[in-house]
Amino acid sequence: MGKVAVNSPAHRPLVSTAVYLAPSVKFPLQKRGLGTIYTPPLARLIEQLQRLPSVGPKTAQRLALHLLKRPDAEVENLAQALLDAKKRVGQCQVCFHLSAEPVCDICRHPQRDNSVICVVSDPRDVIALEKTREFRGKYHVLGGVISPMDGIGPEQLTIQPLLHRVSQPEIKEVILAISPSVEGETTTLYLGKLLQPFTKVTRIAFGLPMGGDLEYADEVTLARALEGRREL
Amino acid sequence: MGKVAVNSPAHRPLVSTAVYLAPSVKFPLQKRGLGTIYTPPLARLIEQLQRLPSVGPKTAQRLALHLLKRPDAEVENLAQALLDAKKRVGQCQVCFHLSAEPVCDICRHPQRDNSVICVVSDPRDVIALEKTREFRGKYHVLGGVISPMDGIGPEQLTIQPLLHRVSQPEIKEVILAISPSVEGETTTLYLGKLLQPFTKVTRIAFGLPMGGDLEYADEVTLARALEGRREL
Repeated sequence: MGKVAVNSPAHRPLVSTAVYLAPSVKFPLQKRGLGTIYTPPLARLIEQLQRLPSVGPKTAQRLALHLLKRPDAEVENLAQALLDAKKRVGQCQVCFHLSAEPVCDICRHPQRDNSVICVVSDPRDVIALEKTREFRGKYHVLGGVISPMDGIGPEQLTIQPLLHRVSQPEIKEVILAISPSVEGETTTLYLGKLLQPFTKVTRIAFGLPMGGDLEYADEVTLARALEGRREL
Repeated sequence: MGKVAVNSPAHRPLVSTAVYLAPSVKFPLQKRGLGTIYTPPLARLIEQLQRLPSVGPKTAQRLALHLLKRPDAEVENLAQALLDAKKRVGQCQVCFHLSAEPVCDICRHPQRDNSVICVVSDPRDVIALEKTREFRGKYHVLGGVISPMDGIGPEQLTIQPLLHRVSQPEIKEVILAISPSVEGETTTLYLGKLLQPFTKVTRIAFGLPMGGDLEYADEVTLARALEGRREL
């Protein structure tokens, strides 16, 4: 091998390869003495992509190089979709679900049942429930769960507007669909007490998931499944 | 459960759940009779994100909802980085690596060795080699490998400009660093014959990867390792 071009191992600093390679992998713009690895606009794109959840340096590089190969229009469409969604998507004034209109599509829909409200903590719960196509009522997005450790009390959630909605005479049932974590249970119990004076309050069932194996279910889930048993 | 709001199973159409749920998952904008699942700007963002490699509907939804929660400036930076990289990053006129300048950082660097050229098929090979910090020469990016099945002959690659570079008197060595696929081997052999009249031509070593286990190496790799043995 040409000695002019290839560093012999003896000239390498005495650090392990892992430590030695890490800086260039983590900070693509960093100067290396022999020029930058990525040309600056590419380095900035990789840096920005790395901010996305579960996108590391390797995935960011792969996405960036993929996008450089695509037609201009495709990259412009993605950039425009980003700006457009960020600018236009806000919260529905009634249910606090994501919406580009002041009142969301679900709240405005004439064929949906006004008398039932399903309370969830997050907009992605609305999306998950809508995908089942089982529910024809309306929603209410709390924006989180009661969590004193994180400084989130009832005032930080959309509980006042919920109370206002539930106090309307047409409401026949409120379904609480909040994940059964410690904070979720607290929120469910709190809302149950708060709303029971106004209407019937139910909560979704917890038990074995479909296709689940009784033998391998954890004890809390099994206890919940027994407790929630129904007559055939 | 309130009969008003929840469809009983008897009213569901007679198709399996998998088929029944698929449309709303794949085409988020599709009307469902009870309103759209995603508000239109969000649906368009999810559609655009799904075009990225190995990003499916679930990941696209997760990325989109993550971005909606981030500050405006962060989303604007990402959109700007996309447009900027697409607009400014082209090819180096000398080596055809990705570059925002007419001649790339590596080709312009005064401390790099002009007498050695490492030939690779793709810009990401340059990035991988640069990360080793072992090579101080220059590169040449072919833009692919010879593949008659895909209609890629020597004319479709940057072989003419390579020939011009290699014919310069300062060139002492050309290192061929092309992945050992069938097409890669063809390209290596073709370039070897073409360039040997001008200068010394070498190729990178193939053999056991570091940390690899001899017992589990495939036969071709082992044969290559034997063939490429060196005196201690």
